[in-house]
Amino acid sequence: MLAELDVPHRLIPYDMLAGDHLTKAFRQINPNGRLPAIVDHAPADGGAPFPVFESGAILLYLSEKHGGALMPEDTRGRSLAQQWLMWQMAGFGPMHGQAHHFIRYAPEGQEHPVTRYRNEAIRLLNVLERRLQETPYMAGEDYSVADIATWPWVRAARAIQLPLEPYPAIQRWSAEIGKRPGVQRGTEVSNERNLSSLRPQLTKEAWSNLFGENMLKSGQ
Amino acid sequence: MLAELDVPHRLIPYDMLAGDHLTKAFRQINPNGRLPAIVDHAPADGGAPFPVFESGAILLYLSEKHGGALMPEDTRGRSLAQQWLMWQMAGFGPMHGQAHHFIRYAPEGQEHPVTRYRNEAIRLLNVLERRLQETPYMAGEDYSVADIATWPWVRAARAIQLPLEPYPAIQRWSAEIGKRPGVQRGTEVSNERNLSSLRPQLTKEAWSNLFGENMLKSGQ
Repeated sequence: MLAELDVPHRLIPYDMLAGDHLTKAFRQINPNGRLPAIVDHAPADGGAPFPVFESGAILLYLSEKHGGALMPEDTRGRSLAQQWLMWQMAGFGPMHGQAHHFIRYAPEGQEHPVTRYRNEAIRLLNVLERRLQETPYMAGEDYSVADIATWPWVRAARAIQLPLEPYPAIQRWSAEIGKRPGVQRGTEVSNERNLSSLRPQLTKEAWSNLFGENMLKSGQ
Repeated sequence: MLAELDVPHRLIPYDMLAGDHLTKAFRQINPNGRLPAIVDHAPADGGAPFPVFESGAILLYLSEKHGGALMPEDTRGRSLAQQWLMWQMAGFGPMHGQAHHFIRYAPEGQEHPVTRYRNEAIRLLNVLERRLQETPYMAGEDYSVADIATWPWVRAARAIQLPLEPYPAIQRWSAEIGKRPGVQRGTEVSNERNLSSLRPQLTKEAWSNLFGENMLKSGQ
């Protein structure tokens, strides 16, 4: 979103395997201790720096700050962008995230959760495919915050062994978005390494920082 | 939200155990085949009835239609309401939902997912407790859409055996919200039965409509 809007910004890398997100200082930016989060050092009201957490809320904040950028202007289009953004935030993202956890990171041999989340990940791809057979982009005619939020999760589907071949409309949409200069600038910084291995090997400390005791204790 | 705004509306009960949400007709209202969803028969543009799906998007749509109701007006407050609404939509709701699935509905004896989701449900309650020790409501001084979205999940925590005793600020907040006339009207229609049993007994057909083959096939 920052690259799409061509807004000056500084990226600060957090090494989650090392637990960079678990500090008390970072909780001042995101009380939930997760990534991404931004701090706006030039907020519209001219006041103190303003932190924003949750990717969906960051997208809405930046859109509103920049004159409604990447949101349709009419009431119906605007709501459709909100609906598909919420569908990604509440469904596609979290459920693909659980599929990644159980297929890639959890102790092996857990049939029920692996089947549950793989099935749900596929069901959600089917919902997206049907939508993109009706309209060029998720909210309708134009590229919006809903597409920005969903595209990286679709791109990551290969890491849970869900290729896009069964989804021609998603492939068309995904390729078009991938060509956007803002998306190309934005993805230069992403960690491709993380998608290249089906089961990344984590140290005990890294596991604990991501999923275990260290992560849980940080919030208390 | 409809009760809080005192907007005329008609509730249409869907029996999810019977698969009412899996019909092709309902997909015209919610392409994702889930509840809740609304149809606005008096949209602001005077045009055809307008369906809205995803609870978070319904809240934003109704707020915007009714002059920004239950959203702070200043930029920072507005963003904080969006941040905590997204936190509920992307985190508290889905993760408590997974805890309900594995503690109450999934085949028993699955240690890793039960521990994972119980821990995450507790972590999220801790995040909410810290927030409500700082401010009366999630977005700040005033009750907002963020509280409306989160309150029912907090209320359901007892069904996964997470009592609220360790969380004094959540208890204060929860009791205050429970006294609101709009909330009392709104909860009259909710299905209390569903929270009274730790492990509801489902027929094979009902299980399939909620979690299995019937649910998956409906979207294809």
